Amino acid sequence: MIREYLKNVLKEVALDIVIFAFREGRMEVLLLKWKHTDKYSLPGGRIRVDESLKDAVARTVEERTGLKGVFLQQFQVFGELDRYSYYSAKQTREYVERALGESLEDLDLLSRTVSIGYYALVNGERALPQPDALTEACAWWDVHDLPRLLFDHNHMIERALETLRREIRYQPVGQLLPEKFTLGELHRLFEVILGIALDRRNFHKIVTGYDFLIRLNEKKVGAAIRAPQLYSFNFKKYYAALKDGVGV
Amino acid sequence: MIREYLKNVLKEVALDIVIFAFREGRMEVLLLKWKHTDKYSLPGGRIRVDESLKDAVARTVEERTGLKGVFLQQFQVFGELDRYSYYSAKQTREYVERALGESLEDLDLLSRTVSIGYYALVNGERALPQPDALTEACAWWDVHDLPRLLFDHNHMIERALETLRREIRYQPVGQLLPEKFTLGELHRLFEVILGIALDRRNFHKIVTGYDFLIRLNEKKVGAAIRAPQLYSFNFKKYYAALKDGVGV
Repeated sequence: MIREYLKNVLKEVALDIVIFAFREGRMEVLLLKWKHTDKYSLPGGRIRVDESLKDAVARTVEERTGLKGVFLQQFQVFGELDRYSYYSAKQTREYVERALGESLEDLDLLSRTVSIGYYALVNGERALPQPDALTEACAWWDVHDLPRLLFDHNHMIERALETLRREIRYQPVGQLLPEKFTLGELHRLFEVILGIALDRRNFHKIVTGYDFLIRLNEKKVGAAIRAPQLYSFNFKKYYAALKDGVGV
Repeated sequence: MIREYLKNVLKEVALDIVIFAFREGRMEVLLLKWKHTDKYSLPGGRIRVDESLKDAVARTVEERTGLKGVFLQQFQVFGELDRYSYYSAKQTREYVERALGESLEDLDLLSRTVSIGYYALVNGERALPQPDALTEACAWWDVHDLPRLLFDHNHMIERALETLRREIRYQPVGQLLPEKFTLGELHRLFEVILGIALDRRNFHKIVTGYDFLIRLNEKKVGAAIRAPQLYSFNFKKYYAALKDGVGV
């Protein structure tokens, strides 16, 4: 199967995708556990010869999460020579072969690959994580409590987070929230991405000053004594505001 | 020669580099004129199998400008299927063969390539433009007055400019200026990149409020009646300020 697959994909270029979700107040990423090993990696894949880069990324995210139309952003190309030597190349080949259940001797699977790094912002409530052919589990992990990943994938997650932090004014981080959310959740989301405390009162004042929040006729049930107000996005207005930057 | 070269480079990945300079109040880019044609393209090239992506970009910029240590920034990967069909694939092959002076029938030179787009910020006074093996001229062109370029290169320049504009607070655009410059030149540089007029008095007040400008004991000679004051950068302080963003 892997042999058939490799006939129809670009071999020198790979994709690696940092799929972010905001779950119970934490920023999490989707990780795959490789078959017959205790090794983990980011979701990723290859570009088919007959599909564009963009379509390849969207297809991969859909295969891993079941979600279509997800927000995707290129953040860096990884082109170092030693990308596979975080573990030794021999060791890496062993993990891949164990997961595949066959020898790779005759395949050029682990030769030099340049990887294009994307991040995806998904609604964690909607995603249905699915492993791929080489892996046996696909699950969410807290970005601040990750295992040591195969290849340069820990480094990739750090770089994706840095980019998101730097570009937070222009990126639709609201895509990480459930459809209906409280201002407290929005506040926590910004704090968790930026890694700093933001004055709550001031934050509420600023975000409600924008025209993209819709105050719903609904409160969050089962929460605290004073049930908090729920909001949703007017995404058209949200995206328009992001063009000029949404400061908090 | 091209055959030897292709043996030692990645074939599915290309580099295209938008080399910006600020010359006589204009933003300009370096373009190559292809041999025996009236066609132009961006400088670019391939990654050698034994060099990192970063080294390949630095080498290419040095080959085209003579400059080392230039500021380089990835801005986008171009992975559409129709990248070569702005002109027809057949026509493009004809231009390449004319420049090469040999047939490409047996080479896979124009099969699917994913191109990694970088921009470079150089000091136009210091660069010494040099064509490559396929081209006969290498010269500066005003970004607002470009010929129709081969491949998707017009699109690439637009995207590079958009990125620079969006990230101007964080990118060292001062690298585009000569070593000694006037506040008027710095003001013009920001206006030209942003494509808007900036109040001169206010701009001067803001930039001189930063600690990264060194007021030289020198004035610009041969200029206006009132010779303007010259400045240079304290680059250490400039880069430190860019981490938080330099607003104007």
